[in-house]
Amino acid sequence: MIIILRKDPELRQLENLKAWLTGQHLTIHESKGESHMILGLVGDTSAVDIDLLRALDIVEDVKRIQEPYKNANRKFHEEDTVIPVGNTQMGGDVFTMIAGPCSIESEEQICLIATAVKQAGATMLRGGAFKPRTSPYAFQGLRAHGLDLLLEAKKLSGLPVVTEIMDLSQLHLFADVDVIQVGARNMQNFELLKELGHTGKPILIKRGLANTLQELLMSAEYVMAGGNGNVVLCERGIRTFETAARNTLDLSAVPLLKKMSHLPVIIDPSHATGIAGLVKPMALAAAASGADGLMIEVHNDPSHALSDGAQSLTPEAFADVSAAVQAVLPFACRYNHGKVV
Amino acid sequence: MIIILRKDPELRQLENLKAWLTGQHLTIHESKGESHMILGLVGDTSAVDIDLLRALDIVEDVKRIQEPYKNANRKFHEEDTVIPVGNTQMGGDVFTMIAGPCSIESEEQICLIATAVKQAGATMLRGGAFKPRTSPYAFQGLRAHGLDLLLEAKKLSGLPVVTEIMDLSQLHLFADVDVIQVGARNMQNFELLKELGHTGKPILIKRGLANTLQELLMSAEYVMAGGNGNVVLCERGIRTFETAARNTLDLSAVPLLKKMSHLPVIIDPSHATGIAGLVKPMALAAAASGADGLMIEVHNDPSHALSDGAQSLTPEAFADVSAAVQAVLPFACRYNHGKVV
Amino acid sequence: MIIILRKDPELRQLENLKAWLTGQHLTIHESKGESHMILGLVGDTSAVDIDLLRALDIVEDVKRIQEPYKNANRKFHEEDTVIPVGNTQMGGDVFTMIAGPCSIESEEQICLIATAVKQAGATMLRGGAFKPRTSPYAFQGLRAHGLDLLLEAKKLSGLPVVTEIMDLSQLHLFADVDVIQVGARNMQNFELLKELGHTGKPILIKRGLANTLQELLMSAEYVMAGGNGNVVLCERGIRTFETAARNTLDLSAVPLLKKMSHLPVIIDPSHATGIAGLVKPMALAAAASGADGLMIEVHNDPSHALSDGAQSLTPEAFADVSAAVQAVLPFACRYNHGKVV
Amino acid sequence: MIIILRKDPELRQLENLKAWLTGQHLTIHESKGESHMILGLVGDTSAVDIDLLRALDIVEDVKRIQEPYKNANRKFHEEDTVIPVGNTQMGGDVFTMIAGPCSIESEEQICLIATAVKQAGATMLRGGAFKPRTSPYAFQGLRAHGLDLLLEAKKLSGLPVVTEIMDLSQLHLFADVDVIQVGARNMQNFELLKELGHTGKPILIKRGLANTLQELLMSAEYVMAGGNGNVVLCERGIRTFETAARNTLDLSAVPLLKKMSHLPVIIDPSHATGIAGLVKPMALAAAASGADGLMIEVHNDPSHALSDGAQSLTPEAFADVSAAVQAVLPFACRYNHGKVV
Repeated sequence: MIIILRKDPELRQLENLKAWLTGQHLTIHESKGESHMILGLVGDTSAVDIDLLRALDIVEDVKRIQEPYKNANRKFHEEDTVIPVGNTQMGGDVFTMIAGPCSIESEEQICLIATAVKQAGATMLRGGAFKPRTSPYAFQGLRAHGLDLLLEAKKLSGLPVVTEIMDLSQLHLFADVDVIQVGARNMQNFELLKELGHTGKPILIKRGLANTLQELLMSAEYVMAGGNGNVVLCERGIRTFETAARNTLDLSAVPLLKKMSHLPVIIDPSHATGIAGLVKPMALAAAASGADGLMIEVHNDPSHALSDGAQSLTPEAFADVSAAVQAVLPFACRYNHGKVV
Repeated sequence: MIIILRKDPELRQLENLKAWLTGQHLTIHESKGESHMILGLVGDTSAVDIDLLRALDIVEDVKRIQEPYKNANRKFHEEDTVIPVGNTQMGGDVFTMIAGPCSIESEEQICLIATAVKQAGATMLRGGAFKPRTSPYAFQGLRAHGLDLLLEAKKLSGLPVVTEIMDLSQLHLFADVDVIQVGARNMQNFELLKELGHTGKPILIKRGLANTLQELLMSAEYVMAGGNGNVVLCERGIRTFETAARNTLDLSAVPLLKKMSHLPVIIDPSHATGIAGLVKPMALAAAASGADGLMIEVHNDPSHALSDGAQSLTPEAFADVSAAVQAVLPFACRYNHGKVV
Repeated sequence: MIIILRKDPELRQLENLKAWLTGQHLTIHESKGESHMILGLVGDTSAVDIDLLRALDIVEDVKRIQEPYKNANRKFHEEDTVIPVGNTQMGGDVFTMIAGPCSIESEEQICLIATAVKQAGATMLRGGAFKPRTSPYAFQGLRAHGLDLLLEAKKLSGLPVVTEIMDLSQLHLFADVDVIQVGARNMQNFELLKELGHTGKPILIKRGLANTLQELLMSAEYVMAGGNGNVVLCERGIRTFETAARNTLDLSAVPLLKKMSHLPVIIDPSHATGIAGLVKPMALAAAASGADGLMIEVHNDPSHALSDGAQSLTPEAFADVSAAVQAVLPFACRYNHGKVV
Repeated sequence: MIIILRKDPELRQLENLKAWLTGQHLTIHESKGESHMILGLVGDTSAVDIDLLRALDIVEDVKRIQEPYKNANRKFHEEDTVIPVGNTQMGGDVFTMIAGPCSIESEEQICLIATAVKQAGATMLRGGAFKPRTSPYAFQGLRAHGLDLLLEAKKLSGLPVVTEIMDLSQLHLFADVDVIQVGARNMQNFELLKELGHTGKPILIKRGLANTLQELLMSAEYVMAGGNGNVVLCERGIRTFETAARNTLDLSAVPLLKKMSHLPVIIDPSHATGIAGLVKPMALAAAASGADGLMIEVHNDPSHALSDGAQSLTPEAFADVSAAVQAVLPFACRYNHGKVV
């Protein structure tokens, strides 16, 4: 960490600062330029509060050199993390294809979709039981009952399941869930992350709408610091000024996260775009960029008037995307220890 | 709500859509232009899922005319909401001045600050016990013990207190807290909002870093739909491309929220800027724009080496800001039923 | 165009508005809901100033149904535009690979790179003569002399050349340039766009850092309205809150622009990311998404100390990217009349 | 400037880098930490290309310590710049109130408004002759004839005039214009800025929609480097994810620019919000924050059907805002050498 001081810092403040830094077990290297004095800190700076330092009168700026995440950091864990999930895995040589409906609506619906997506090449099943909805008046999901139905579909299809937790108080219901998803809106729900760090279960963390990649890794770090290294990162679109799609898919997250971290990285083109017609091109792009997997919404309920033209792909459209992705994969970008090869 | 259909919609899909809309107790007005057909919906559309409609093949776009929030809506509640808090109130003719430290550190610290800010004109005391920190390695607050100390300071100073809740499981500790704060990162923690709707306590909701004003009002709506109308809205900076300050204070939130809603609106210039030198000009600007109050960080701990030059204002600097705000208030923008007068 | 009026509009204002609309040769369809009155406009609304309408007291909102661009609109020109450029073309069945240095530095440099990138599969040569630099103290390009050198390299290699114009006064120098580039910072330099509309030359317009896709198409419309239909669109990263890369590549621009417009769409992964290690994965992703081409910075100047590790790819690294892109292309997303197939 | 090198940099590349830096007349201070090596550069680094350095393989990051602007920098010019304009001035003790129509439409219109705003307290008259419009089909302004009418209004009212230039080729028409405005879309039209640097005229530069404050100062630097120190900075809203207003007014630009630079800073609440009802609260906020002036759109054309309810303020509404601003000014935030007092 480098601290750039203002010109002619007040001596007493400087002494206070240096005493405080030494108290944090850091060694200080001073160097004086023409217009600024610089303190270089050597030691473990991951617990140092950079905002606090920046706020000091005598400090002009602070520059982290060591990243503030350790467990999630590629520098300290060169090999890719591979996470076993039921009969499959996330990361490594397997391309993960997660598919399923936005909301679990009925046993018939989830089982029908599970069977269909398995046949089309899905390796895992997703489905929402607890639904974060912007409006209190919108359908909030089948909740505990939805989880039961999802587990029925797991039994039927043999596919491991991924589903979202919205609050700590729901955790006891997730015993048979294979991968627990933390949604974008909860990415910085730190109490939830801490508790998930004690579960040992694979945790799929979705990037928040306005969160940097470093913040995403800090959220992974919350889980990992509790002893749970089974974290998967998911880019699902960020919020920008552009309104042509629901969000802006930030696909450069794939090579950047590969370099910064050893954790698997998957892409959710359905939420990132909110438009059915964009799922296939963005799925192909994600595969070509070297992502470890995809998470795609698939819907099919012939009894439901509205499903007819819905944005989620039908199982048939998903099968088309899945086959196209398989065709691109042999030519996708490859990484070795996080570097493009 | 207006649904703009694509040119020559498939007849069966159109019939399905109309049947579904009628099933939602909506009346449909059709009108046909040269290139598009339009469905105007009359009735209560607040539970209609606009994203679901947009996702239909035959739909080009959907435009809400009625806002999706009812309880928080100025249109259905013309008078300003005034919330009694201890010996003071939020909203109405009283300008709320909330002051206090970022984190509660000790009984001495919080009591000393409480006394000082009261004398300088604060009407309420703030202080963090549960601290949302980006890093798991950073100080997480004194938690339950911090709340105890805050309540000591309340008793000593007579000031009502505001403090942040981070998880539902902490709620039982907040019985004697006057105003419960929902932080920016939890603005869309819907399970938490729902539960706070059953408390009857004043809830101060901070706008999320990437949340629109409409989303802020939808979060207020979650609390209000549960029966708790005591909601205060707080703008504390949004995330943009500009990095000169920590966030970008969106002061137009004041007149916009006044028009959209009847709830009190306060501004937090400390978090919005992250720079001590910006607190005074932004506090004066907020007061002049007609905000209902301010929330300002004040820190003072002579035994702590780092506090010396810290970004939080000292009690003396806060007294200066407080006096300057009082001088501006008589000339501030005024609103009548949400309209500038 | 739909105009949503406020409840109980003042009669005189309403009459004024209707008279004004009729004066614009528009037919008005009125429909009255419970809380709002709606005016549907039929006719050519492309010249109607939507901001002016929105600003009227009696207007709540205005919703365009027809896009404000005509010449660039896929709806009025179903077939993909194909633009002949020297011995090649942009759009259609040819994948365009533009490569070359950021700045033209010397005859030796540009000729050496031209030869190398041609051998590696480039179909066009790029090189900056007039350089938009944030700082007045930075190298501003070789200007007219740079253009001469670029044309030398064109003669030598046989590759058509693309280079940026910064001001109208430079236009007379571009007679032998094959494609004139309008940079991101000039995307809304409307005087320049108007004049380029009279040249008949292929114009490559880069999307501005904070411009929507619709605005990009409006800038294309400026050129096309002048009679020049040879416009190529280029996504080169937008400005967001994320700072891990220089900009955020918005790859969903490919399917969106394909649907909105018939113009060729290319991607510039070098400027979009600013990081050499991201060029290959993003180039592969762009190819897989169905883009019509790429624009990649390639640099090689052994006599120049700094070029050794520079971010621009070396000719060898470019050859690797080019081969990898060729391998992905047969499996890339395909479009028919702008729709994914 | 500080260069942070990657761990174990390749020796040859390091030597090349050091040779290049020395060739730029910079002195290098090396310091080696546990995980990184750091080069501190002493000397004039304003011409060093930070992106070029960042792009080197062996460089992890580069941190500027000296700002890249010199002429606009408060550090090298402690006193506020005051710019004489006709019978008034910009900056210093005078609060500038610029008012006038968006577009000049007729002699009657501009003269009527000029007289009215002067009476209401305006110190300068604005009016657009060359209009940057997103659509080529929208009214592009009266152009040269518009300038003539503006100069008529100047003669009549005695108010100095501000109007926008869109292209270098128009410059000869601006001889009698008092202040030349560079619009947000042209903020980085560097060829235009360079030329304006040779005019000696006051130049009002509007911040681009997605430009940082530092970039705004770099654009000022372009003008100043040419020898013209008469630059005024104008914040007029930035583009963010929020769509409730047209743009997001970034009022923290006032104290930040005051600290970074000695140039006058004014606020345009009309363009920043695009909503008439927001002009008064934002004008009061801007005045309270210590801005040097305001630029407000005023419109009045009784013969024009649409002007009746338009967003621009009427002269009467402007008089109300102007009086309210005058009342706030004595209590506004004050600065001494850029620091809040």
